Amino acid sequence: MRARDLGVAPGIFAPGKHNAITDVADVRVGQVTLKEGDTVRTGVTAIFPHSGNAYRSRVPAAVHVGNGFGKFIGSTQVNELGELETPILLTCTLCVWKAADAMAAWMLDQPDMHQVRSLNVVVGETNDGGLNDIRARPVTAAAVRTALESAASGAVQEGSVGAGTGTVAFGWKGGIGTSSRVLPASLGGWTVGVLVQSNFGGVLQVSGAPVGRELERYAFQNAVALQGNGQPGAADDRGDGSIIIIIATDAPLGDRNLRRLASRGMMGLGRTGSSASNGSGDYVLAFSTAASVRRAFDATRLETSELANEQMSGVFQASVEAVEEAIYNSIFMATTVSGNGKTVEAIPLDRVREVLQRYGIAPPKH
Amino acid sequence: MRARDLGVAPGIFAPGKHNAITDVADVRVGQVTLKEGDTVRTGVTAIFPHSGNAYRSRVPAAVHVGNGFGKFIGSTQVNELGELETPILLTCTLCVWKAADAMAAWMLDQPDMHQVRSLNVVVGETNDGGLNDIRARPVTAAAVRTALESAASGAVQEGSVGAGTGTVAFGWKGGIGTSSRVLPASLGGWTVGVLVQSNFGGVLQVSGAPVGRELERYAFQNAVALQGNGQPGAADDRGDGSIIIIIATDAPLGDRNLRRLASRGMMGLGRTGSSASNGSGDYVLAFSTAASVRRAFDATRLETSELANEQMSGVFQASVEAVEEAIYNSIFMATTVSGNGKTVEAIPLDRVREVLQRYGIAPPKH
Amino acid sequence: MRARDLGVAPGIFAPGKHNAITDVADVRVGQVTLKEGDTVRTGVTAIFPHSGNAYRSRVPAAVHVGNGFGKFIGSTQVNELGELETPILLTCTLCVWKAADAMAAWMLDQPDMHQVRSLNVVVGETNDGGLNDIRARPVTAAAVRTALESAASGAVQEGSVGAGTGTVAFGWKGGIGTSSRVLPASLGGWTVGVLVQSNFGGVLQVSGAPVGRELERYAFQNAVALQGNGQPGAADDRGDGSIIIIIATDAPLGDRNLRRLASRGMMGLGRTGSSASNGSGDYVLAFSTAASVRRAFDATRLETSELANEQMSGVFQASVEAVEEAIYNSIFMATTVSGNGKTVEAIPLDRVREVLQRYGIAPPKH
Amino acid sequence: MRARDLGVAPGIFAPGKHNAITDVADVRVGQVTLKEGDTVRTGVTAIFPHSGNAYRSRVPAAVHVGNGFGKFIGSTQVNELGELETPILLTCTLCVWKAADAMAAWMLDQPDMHQVRSLNVVVGETNDGGLNDIRARPVTAAAVRTALESAASGAVQEGSVGAGTGTVAFGWKGGIGTSSRVLPASLGGWTVGVLVQSNFGGVLQVSGAPVGRELERYAFQNAVALQGNGQPGAADDRGDGSIIIIIATDAPLGDRNLRRLASRGMMGLGRTGSSASNGSGDYVLAFSTAASVRRAFDATRLETSELANEQMSGVFQASVEAVEEAIYNSIFMATTVSGNGKTVEAIPLDRVREVLQRYGIAPPKH
Repeated sequence: MRARDLGVAPGIFAPGKHNAITDVADVRVGQVTLKEGDTVRTGVTAIFPHSGNAYRSRVPAAVHVGNGFGKFIGSTQVNELGELETPILLTCTLCVWKAADAMAAWMLDQPDMHQVRSLNVVVGETNDGGLNDIRARPVTAAAVRTALESAASGAVQEGSVGAGTGTVAFGWKGGIGTSSRVLPASLGGWTVGVLVQSNFGGVLQVSGAPVGRELERYAFQNAVALQGNGQPGAADDRGDGSIIIIIATDAPLGDRNLRRLASRGMMGLGRTGSSASNGSGDYVLAFSTAASVRRAFDATRLETSELANEQMSGVFQASVEAVEEAIYNSIFMATTVSGNGKTVEAIPLDRVREVLQRYGIAPPKH
Repeated sequence: MRARDLGVAPGIFAPGKHNAITDVADVRVGQVTLKEGDTVRTGVTAIFPHSGNAYRSRVPAAVHVGNGFGKFIGSTQVNELGELETPILLTCTLCVWKAADAMAAWMLDQPDMHQVRSLNVVVGETNDGGLNDIRARPVTAAAVRTALESAASGAVQEGSVGAGTGTVAFGWKGGIGTSSRVLPASLGGWTVGVLVQSNFGGVLQVSGAPVGRELERYAFQNAVALQGNGQPGAADDRGDGSIIIIIATDAPLGDRNLRRLASRGMMGLGRTGSSASNGSGDYVLAFSTAASVRRAFDATRLETSELANEQMSGVFQASVEAVEEAIYNSIFMATTVSGNGKTVEAIPLDRVREVLQRYGIAPPKH
Repeated sequence: MRARDLGVAPGIFAPGKHNAITDVADVRVGQVTLKEGDTVRTGVTAIFPHSGNAYRSRVPAAVHVGNGFGKFIGSTQVNELGELETPILLTCTLCVWKAADAMAAWMLDQPDMHQVRSLNVVVGETNDGGLNDIRARPVTAAAVRTALESAASGAVQEGSVGAGTGTVAFGWKGGIGTSSRVLPASLGGWTVGVLVQSNFGGVLQVSGAPVGRELERYAFQNAVALQGNGQPGAADDRGDGSIIIIIATDAPLGDRNLRRLASRGMMGLGRTGSSASNGSGDYVLAFSTAASVRRAFDATRLETSELANEQMSGVFQASVEAVEEAIYNSIFMATTVSGNGKTVEAIPLDRVREVLQRYGIAPPKH
Repeated sequence: MRARDLGVAPGIFAPGKHNAITDVADVRVGQVTLKEGDTVRTGVTAIFPHSGNAYRSRVPAAVHVGNGFGKFIGSTQVNELGELETPILLTCTLCVWKAADAMAAWMLDQPDMHQVRSLNVVVGETNDGGLNDIRARPVTAAAVRTALESAASGAVQEGSVGAGTGTVAFGWKGGIGTSSRVLPASLGGWTVGVLVQSNFGGVLQVSGAPVGRELERYAFQNAVALQGNGQPGAADDRGDGSIIIIIATDAPLGDRNLRRLASRGMMGLGRTGSSASNGSGDYVLAFSTAASVRRAFDATRLETSELANEQMSGVFQASVEAVEEAIYNSIFMATTVSGNGKTVEAIPLDRVREVLQRYGIAPPKH
């Protein structure tokens, strides 16, 4: 059940058709879920900024490091040059290097890429080492290729899939979530889409309703002491972990304003009950798909038309709302997963609904 | 009425004695409110990191620039050297330079300062140009001295006082707010105190309850179009403005962890309904008062004992909670102010209470 | 005598007509030298990005903080919005706030500025507290206005003038210096102009020739110990101080590439023998005057044509060369100044010439 | 022949025993050179911060991104947590991911590492794609293990070895270079050691002597146009490429001062004739081996004794000098390499000596 099915509709703007990152035209998502034996519970999620060759037709982009306890690959070049030159992969922490090498190989094999000798692969991760034998680094080149080649527009699978197969958020099963916002015409009519890989701690609140407190689930440093009941959090006493947030928009933004936009991802994250714990690798990447800011790889001049600073506030607001809702979707859509000798349960939606009702968010069932 | 009086108690930790930044031992606050004729509605708020000479006995500190549309003075040296060497002043945007010069003069006149030829004055600001004739830059050296010399421990005045005299938040009267948290002993028992100067836009939510939406107050870019009723927001259609957030703690933190702590201020801000609009100058400064990280100005070695990274999560969480509550206090405690030909009304607490009750936050009145 | 008169011609590109920042068309410089009694030895240098209203017609700009032990005002907003909205002032350290307030007043009084309530004044400084009674903060509003209103194109006065009146570099008298480079047509034909306020330490080398070592002048931490002769450096044993570097170009650069350009200022500084000592406030500001990147203050869209990343290397190289030469000019053109009970001598050019000859740089006199 | 053998001795401080990064006690270097058939000309260079387990006994560290056109892995976590938890690897651009995965595997197999599920591997690179079939990503896990396991103290091989096997600098063969400085006792007596992987462009100057100009070797954007002779630079017309600079010191520095120290690497680079061209991935990593700042992985408190800011200037100066000399060593020690259908020649030291003599640096041969 997605957040909206429970009456949760953060913010003031409406979502797009799929309420997904793919509402930004031409953005595509591909996912592979890896479950093998008792020990492999991981996967790959790929996001394409557009349907062409990401290297030859580059989108402006920026990365905000919210809390850099993570292995995110490629951020310094994105920020130096202000652009993305590959799709974005998400996977498990210790899998990033194999995934990056596999995507490099795949990209180098694409048409018109035979002369390329430098490639800034972008790969994010969160740590699914509770349910997944992460030390084995089980993501294969074949899995990466499948994720890349299955990328499609339209609805996006959420929850315990792809790079979210083995993740944990707020002590319940987390995973992949997505959401979008469409600005009113008076604010430009732009679409902002978000996809998250949720795997972090804190005390969940849903549109402010204190779900974590009411359900006594503190995914937090020394949670045992907090709870006072001797029961540790589901997967990780410290509630560490991470979140990767990808923000796409068709608003024509330059790289500086994309960097500002990316920083707003942390405000949306804050709304869900995170305070970005020490061990959380919280990275936000934002890119614009607008034709008027697109860059040919061999251009000597950039002729662009972008929004002035004063036009950014609506886009900022939309991104905060979509990040918040994408996180809820990642948790509400996740299913219970067992692996590596542990089980992380899906959040009990009936109990969530009760809490939401008490806090005026979900309408009472009739 | 403070937020707690309305049943608003964000987070999981308890506040300190005064629920104020001054709960961090030895932190002092001094304020001067300037109201003259119809045109002056501004003031000065001073925060002292301790009761000694801030230059000679330096606290480690860091500044996080959430959205740098502001005139905050002194941030680059604070971050380069990792320390504060003066008290912190807050005032009106175009007053920062006069206030900075006045504090420099005051500091240079202190005992044992006669040889000082370099001084990194720290002054933050928000724009009260709606109610205040800001172009006249009405803050005087005398006002600065009074704010500095009246600094005291204990309860802190909130609302339309000091640097908050003429500010606007979420379309209602904003101002100075403060709050604190005390960590449980199992997480170190540290105190985190926050003081804010609120003057920003967005759509207010209180512990998630959509107060702005319910009261139809959108302090936002092109708010007229949003509201559809032709009524602009109270003071500024764009809901711009700014917030300065000061975080003090007695947790023994080094400057790097203080910089991480400061960045969490934006997560607390996000919880109240801000998305950091383009025109908002959102700066967060954090410092630690712990003796074990204090630096003598003439030390050649720093012998310090500080928390390791893994101990930070509780401090992060406490700061997010206290920032959220300090912002509510700044609005709930503010009184209606007229000036410069305009009036900005205090938020109607009765209607807020109704909304909070509908959203399960305030208990019903019996 | 300028550096070129001594045979010093760093790099591979040729200078412009004036070998000055004003070789970038429409850039103007105004300076006021303040000498009063024995104690005032300071001044103001103003740089205008163009001859129009800097607020209403904004140049893209960026600031690089090389070593943030300084009181540079305005950097965070320049970097957030990617633009300059006032001229740039340089003055003495403890004078920055008065100078900033004075420039704000002057700007607010300009035509078409009556509605402006926010203004990001940019002021840099170095510490002339050896020759100047800096604690008195002797820069007046009148001096600031005069500097602003006297700004002109053409040749720029160098040495012990304006904001360089009381500064010290490498243990000799420093001051204002300027230089420029014109790229060959094959690299775009752009002009890069630099102006510096030099007031820092280290061991001077001129095109690599070890002038400081040969003349036994170590302006360095614990220089006495280094020299072994009990004679401290001229003004400051630690060789601290600062440098402000302003880089102007007519190359059409966006703010991100201007930030990259600004960072190259530190490489030019390094070539002269500085290693950016702890106490040095080393800031570099770069802006582009190209019409194709200019921004109207009330634009809602930016339609720009800028150089692609791949076109930057020539501009980077030109800036490094011009920074190096501007620093030499600031020292070689400086005259001996006494004040505040001290004397800082001009570098002895005859002895410099001898060293340069020994190191193959200056041609032998015939 | 090392730089000192040619009379090149930049700066004012003396080198350590080996004039190498290994003069910092307990720092170890291991290298593997990969040459296979005509196409593989690359390798691996490993730097260990000490002889223990880098994960369990962590050194404070920081990364400065001079020009982020590179694939440096691990920088964001190093800067967030202020520490290194693995050795540092250097290799070829498209090899970084395989090398990172291989080092992760090796680390996870070390004693006492069986519970580790997160590891921030640090790998730098430069692009040897001229001489090496970089698209094949020829670095193997076995090569990485060999580099790691062969690490040793003492003299370090320089030139066309390890990660420098296929690199090009200033249009001649580049490679691995190292140097060190020992501060006089009056400045603390600390040792600073540097290792570089040089592969970048510009116009070489050696202690200021214009070797590149005199030898007409412009490794620069559109070098053909510059030279006017139709002969492009040796390997890459644009003179792009990169440099990785590793700075080790036994001075007890905290992570903030290490970040400042790292930034000085760019000043040393500037002295050799680089202006950090657009395509250059210039990263500097600095770490301190001092016991008084070492961090146990499971510490809850850091009890440290570190240098105060005011003590940094000598360390900064030493690092600039050692970076400059390490770069010269990397070029002067490199031997001609052919591969991938190309040849990059070693710099002709006889002609260099002639130039150095003309510029008063090398003494005349008698």
